[in-house]
Amino acid sequence: MSSLLLSRRDLEFLLYEWLDVTALTRRERYAEHSRETFDAVLELGERIADEHFAGHNKLADVNEPTMDGDGRVVLIPEVKAALDVFARAGLLAAEFDEALGGMQLPNVVSKAVLSWFQAANVGTSAYPFLTIANANLLVAHGSPEQVERWVRPMAEGRFFGTMCLSEPQAGSSLADITTRAEPQEDGTHRLTGTKMWISAGDHELSENIVHLVLAKIPGGPPGVKGISLFIVPKVLLDEDGGLGERNDVALVGLNHKMGYRGTVNTVLNFGEGVHTPGGSPGAVGYLVGEPHKGLIYMFHMMNEARIGVGLDASALGYTGYLHALDYAKVRLQGRPLAGKDPSAPPVPLIEHVDVRRMLLAQKSYVEGGLALGLYCSRLVDEERTAENEADRRRASLLLDVLTPIAKSWPSQWCLAANDLAIQVHGGYGYTREYNVEQFYRDNRLNPIHEGTHGVQGLDLLGRKVVAQGGEGLRVLGEAIAATVSRAPATAQAEAERLTAAFDRLAAVTARLWSTGDAEVALANASVYLEAAGHIVVAWIWLEQLVAAADREGDFYTGKRRAARYFFRYELPRTGPQLDLLDSLDRTTLDMDPAWF
Amino acid sequence: MSSLLLSRRDLEFLLYEWLDVTALTRRERYAEHSRETFDAVLELGERIADEHFAGHNKLADVNEPTMDGDGRVVLIPEVKAALDVFARAGLLAAEFDEALGGMQLPNVVSKAVLSWFQAANVGTSAYPFLTIANANLLVAHGSPEQVERWVRPMAEGRFFGTMCLSEPQAGSSLADITTRAEPQEDGTHRLTGTKMWISAGDHELSENIVHLVLAKIPGGPPGVKGISLFIVPKVLLDEDGGLGERNDVALVGLNHKMGYRGTVNTVLNFGEGVHTPGGSPGAVGYLVGEPHKGLIYMFHMMNEARIGVGLDASALGYTGYLHALDYAKVRLQGRPLAGKDPSAPPVPLIEHVDVRRMLLAQKSYVEGGLALGLYCSRLVDEERTAENEADRRRASLLLDVLTPIAKSWPSQWCLAANDLAIQVHGGYGYTREYNVEQFYRDNRLNPIHEGTHGVQGLDLLGRKVVAQGGEGLRVLGEAIAATVSRAPATAQAEAERLTAAFDRLAAVTARLWSTGDAEVALANASVYLEAAGHIVVAWIWLEQLVAAADREGDFYTGKRRAARYFFRYELPRTGPQLDLLDSLDRTTLDMDPAWF
Repeated sequence: MSSLLLSRRDLEFLLYEWLDVTALTRRERYAEHSRETFDAVLELGERIADEHFAGHNKLADVNEPTMDGDGRVVLIPEVKAALDVFARAGLLAAEFDEALGGMQLPNVVSKAVLSWFQAANVGTSAYPFLTIANANLLVAHGSPEQVERWVRPMAEGRFFGTMCLSEPQAGSSLADITTRAEPQEDGTHRLTGTKMWISAGDHELSENIVHLVLAKIPGGPPGVKGISLFIVPKVLLDEDGGLGERNDVALVGLNHKMGYRGTVNTVLNFGEGVHTPGGSPGAVGYLVGEPHKGLIYMFHMMNEARIGVGLDASALGYTGYLHALDYAKVRLQGRPLAGKDPSAPPVPLIEHVDVRRMLLAQKSYVEGGLALGLYCSRLVDEERTAENEADRRRASLLLDVLTPIAKSWPSQWCLAANDLAIQVHGGYGYTREYNVEQFYRDNRLNPIHEGTHGVQGLDLLGRKVVAQGGEGLRVLGEAIAATVSRAPATAQAEAERLTAAFDRLAAVTARLWSTGDAEVALANASVYLEAAGHIVVAWIWLEQLVAAADREGDFYTGKRRAARYFFRYELPRTGPQLDLLDSLDRTTLDMDPAWF
Repeated sequence: MSSLLLSRRDLEFLLYEWLDVTALTRRERYAEHSRETFDAVLELGERIADEHFAGHNKLADVNEPTMDGDGRVVLIPEVKAALDVFARAGLLAAEFDEALGGMQLPNVVSKAVLSWFQAANVGTSAYPFLTIANANLLVAHGSPEQVERWVRPMAEGRFFGTMCLSEPQAGSSLADITTRAEPQEDGTHRLTGTKMWISAGDHELSENIVHLVLAKIPGGPPGVKGISLFIVPKVLLDEDGGLGERNDVALVGLNHKMGYRGTVNTVLNFGEGVHTPGGSPGAVGYLVGEPHKGLIYMFHMMNEARIGVGLDASALGYTGYLHALDYAKVRLQGRPLAGKDPSAPPVPLIEHVDVRRMLLAQKSYVEGGLALGLYCSRLVDEERTAENEADRRRASLLLDVLTPIAKSWPSQWCLAANDLAIQVHGGYGYTREYNVEQFYRDNRLNPIHEGTHGVQGLDLLGRKVVAQGGEGLRVLGEAIAATVSRAPATAQAEAERLTAAFDRLAAVTARLWSTGDAEVALANASVYLEAAGHIVVAWIWLEQLVAAADREGDFYTGKRRAARYFFRYELPRTGPQLDLLDSLDRTTLDMDPAWF
């Protein structure tokens, strides 16, 4: 392998041998593309990530962002240098229309390219990733004039973007946001309020920062139905799009995180009168779409954002695994059990069976997580460009039901992979002289942001598997059955175990909802999420077994052995979880706070 | 609760209502003690930990030790101030004989007292804890003159101690150490070599540092059978015990860790000629006990050291749990599922069932881990002071088999508790403005040092359960059966599940060793360790159910609910693990390094 970021060989297997992404070039939107253009951009991504992002990953962790005396955010200069290369390579606009200066790449190829950057340096990558997410939302829901005014400079890397949802008192519960947007006579709004956890909320990396802000227009409905979405730039633009006066958006403070330190995380005040655009305080905001539909627009982008978190977790797990594998091959320690002779020379760590267990576990988690994320990204392409409405609808349903899993499963298990990567390194892995402890700290964010683990569990069991009469789960069952029907003779045992596990999941789902009591049904939604996650990833491994069938060589043998590991060591974990769910256990529900 | 360190109520339950530590006062060694003296020292420990250790826990993490221009270790002044209070209170000598200036406390009471300090500040606590471990070893295996010369000043807090085992090329594999000890004509030895990962290896906190160093005397047997143990002081003593010239021990560098940052971790050179005691280079060392028996002496102390790691992990898990519980009671967020009304005010986090699940999991892990550690500490007292040889032997056997579990189970599950404590806090928990992220980083050391998870698995399955014809496992089975026979009517379901799980464990153990092939038997030793761990902790929870039987009030109800949680959510995890072991799976054994 050329770097310790991701395996190029595995990416090629996933994209070309499994997901058949070249088939997408037969569709009109991607007709200009070919295997050659995909390879070129994958190559470009790997090279820039390795040469410009990986090198300062630790440096940015050690030298986290600070505020200078003038309240400006100070970052190490390597960040801007890397982002300039990223922007010049056109990667901010990888998926955008050619008309917007984009490469018009399929989502799945774009996400594969971006995963190199997540593996190399999540802290620096967050700036362009947030910008892309922001721009995507505006392309989908903004007016043509808003796209021209705000998205084009983001695609060029002149402006960066943020997402401003949370407030100090409202994290998972967006219904409780209190930021207000007062309509003005000129059609704009003036916003006042405080936003919390705003990644990339302020910096000097770009000419301007485009905040997408959730706020309530007075008189709207209560709760989430009264939330609207606004563009609130750091610097206002004149009619020609040139930079004008400062908007009333002020940096109040920085949050200091355990990991992900390269990404500045801020508290922002809107409309506190720190600046007075047009002579009066209040942050000028431009409504996106219709009033009170802000959360709908946000949720429209949520699938992609959540799959992005899963890919981030997978990439961090993957690079940790490659680091551990590399270390295990060179570090000499002890002797294998057989013929333990103290005068024999020590052997590489990988000769110890428990080290191989830890490496196999990591391999099954990170290759499973990456494959799941890319599978979902491929579904995004189907949802957008499949040739008929039925296929698009099927992709959309499957994507909906997979999204909470694609977000949470890698966040849990690729973090577990990072934990094992430390363990393989022993004491060295616990030190900051090596890289794996940073991956572990960085990855710990992923089960929290973009909807916590608990929120994903409620989303899966409370919405996704029951919506539209349970069609989501049915579509997943059909997809699994289709894979089972294609399983090679050598994978029949795995196919049978998967079928049994999914049938059990479906039965348990029905049993939970047969109670007619949402409280009881959802009491162990997180356990349900974890069981469903392992079953889905077992399916993704069976998919890989199908793709690798009858292929020879170490790479394919490795795929088969990792799949075997997953089916023997991992899938059985779901048995006790489904037993618990089936019993409608009330232990957590009935626990009185006074008993703690 | 008065602090967020540990629960005093729980400690009293464990010590007095369950482990009946006052019964120890009927033994000669502890005859001067009573419930009152125990309470007084528990109270003292809590107060000093809370007032002098907890306050600078974060400060010491942020300001980790550095080397100044003269190669001296610089620590924040709060560390020495806290350690002076600790020493003046006599806590360094809590277990020592009165003749040595000690309190002559039972091990179990002493460990309970010390756990306050682990919860308050592991970084600062490590200095006295290492000193105590060092002194204990010398009391057991040093000559009376060595005890007088080195232990007494350690008991008084004038000298601190270290353990110097690992070398850069030899961590888990001590057979490969290369530090040499050349015998001198005057009966001393001169040591040369490099020691790695030496906690508290150099500092200005004490007048002197007493290193206990493993080294090989030329001409000895190969491997671990040729290792001897030496006292190597930083400063040599004159005949009266006064400080003399510098020994040839030099600080080479500091390791920078993910957590546990308050404890300086060093690389030390012995005998590099940096100093020339008596006019010639070489670090002067004094042999402890007989040549070539160093590792036996070390292992003699290993049980206690490993139980200490488990208690450390439990204390960190415990304080994290109390922090999460406190936060969940005050932080308002969202509304419960039943009657979700957006205009209703938000509720405390603890009203959400998934938050209660996370708190119950933490409670079951940390109270289970602390109870296991104290149970083992009580066995140390039995091993030392039980009235007849049979009881002492039985305690010793049980302690041997429990030790790898008492070390590794809390290191895994109380770290999992810290992970959940972060999750309860949401984004706030990921920031360094709160405390839980530090507990998580600190605790991550525990599965590594004093024998990794993998080493513990081999110790349990490869030695402890098979030694002496399997007597260890038999004694554990008898202990479990005795608990089951005392289970109240309300705990019959738990008693039956535990019996079934242990019977299965015993059958699987026999099956593994029936192969006659150590490689196959031990291939999944880590999985065995984890299954055995959950079964043992289920037993510890049944023990607590017995102690809480027929008692009323929130505290006891809480114990019963946490036990219920453990039996319903946790113990069933062992089913698939035992299935895997029973199948003699060869997936990890057969994995060729080329297939990764």
